[in-house]
Amino acid sequence: MVLNTQDSRLTAALRAKRNGHVGLVVWLTGLSGSGKSTLASAVELELFNQGKQVFMLDGDHLRGGLCSDLGFSPEARKENVRRAGEVAALFAEAGLLCIAAFISPYRSERALARRVAPEKRFLEVYLNAPLAVCEKRDPKGLYARARTGELKQFTGVSAPYEPPEHPDLELRTDRFSVTQCVDLLLDKIGQFSLT
Amino acid sequence: MVLNTQDSRLTAALRAKRNGHVGLVVWLTGLSGSGKSTLASAVELELFNQGKQVFMLDGDHLRGGLCSDLGFSPEARKENVRRAGEVAALFAEAGLLCIAAFISPYRSERALARRVAPEKRFLEVYLNAPLAVCEKRDPKGLYARARTGELKQFTGVSAPYEPPEHPDLELRTDRFSVTQCVDLLLDKIGQFSLT
Repeated sequence: MVLNTQDSRLTAALRAKRNGHVGLVVWLTGLSGSGKSTLASAVELELFNQGKQVFMLDGDHLRGGLCSDLGFSPEARKENVRRAGEVAALFAEAGLLCIAAFISPYRSERALARRVAPEKRFLEVYLNAPLAVCEKRDPKGLYARARTGELKQFTGVSAPYEPPEHPDLELRTDRFSVTQCVDLLLDKIGQFSLT
Repeated sequence: MVLNTQDSRLTAALRAKRNGHVGLVVWLTGLSGSGKSTLASAVELELFNQGKQVFMLDGDHLRGGLCSDLGFSPEARKENVRRAGEVAALFAEAGLLCIAAFISPYRSERALARRVAPEKRFLEVYLNAPLAVCEKRDPKGLYARARTGELKQFTGVSAPYEPPEHPDLELRTDRFSVTQCVDLLLDKIGQFSLT
């Protein structure tokens, strides 16, 4: 067979035309218990029902596979978020709305995720709820383990969380219902994903 | 907001119904110059034109991003292929036909890629062309650099390639035209991706 040197890769424009929306990274950041996975799942389902191409990516997802070689040291957690950003970028390149839900406590790592995403195709969404509220929810019992010292360097307790300075959207998940948050996020995604 | 413990993740069946095909990893393995990228690009475009959801993933793709921390030692190359397999599996989970083109010289690493893919959603495609043919093509000039010793442990020259023992499809890319290979591969994908 003759090797083909011509670039026949699909363009983002062709994919967007097919799907009716551009590819996009929707990056949810916030403390453990701020509602990232809940919101991501609900938004994923809603976007799917609207006929969109969508995929949710979260920590549990990657920890069992792509990032199964990583532990929980500060360096390993940064590498985990770096890989998440790269994978989310690939999904956006493939034309999907990628809902990425990661604590991602550092501004620098969120900035990196934005940088590797297709240009202007990254939405930073800050799920803001007071630590006390998140800790009371403690859906996975992690805060309890962090308080006893069993979990080291736990974000919000013994490790910092750097809030976004200029998020594309901020949701006070302690004040709004899931439905309200879903609606606000869908509105924002709708604005950003127009072809 | 009240945290939702119910699993509202989309099922593979819902995605397949929407797309008209299941998610699938189509894994192209073969020597450098065996035609992996050429075939992958052509098949990606054809599947897209058939209305399918498709994404091509290759080494160049990952080396610039997800795997930019990896060098070319045997361990780093294995890790590169491991990550490729995990990312391809995520795309299949998202319902896409993921055309993954990687030399992936070791049986063990291809077996791992199959293991992490959704069950029965992995197609191993062996692009078989004699080393002499691949070396003559040498589209990136890599064989020349391997022969002078500039590139160490180059597959087929100074590092082994373990041919698949039971590939789902074997294509003699030295005997068939690109069009013939594309047609054979599309047939196979069609059989495997029925909903």
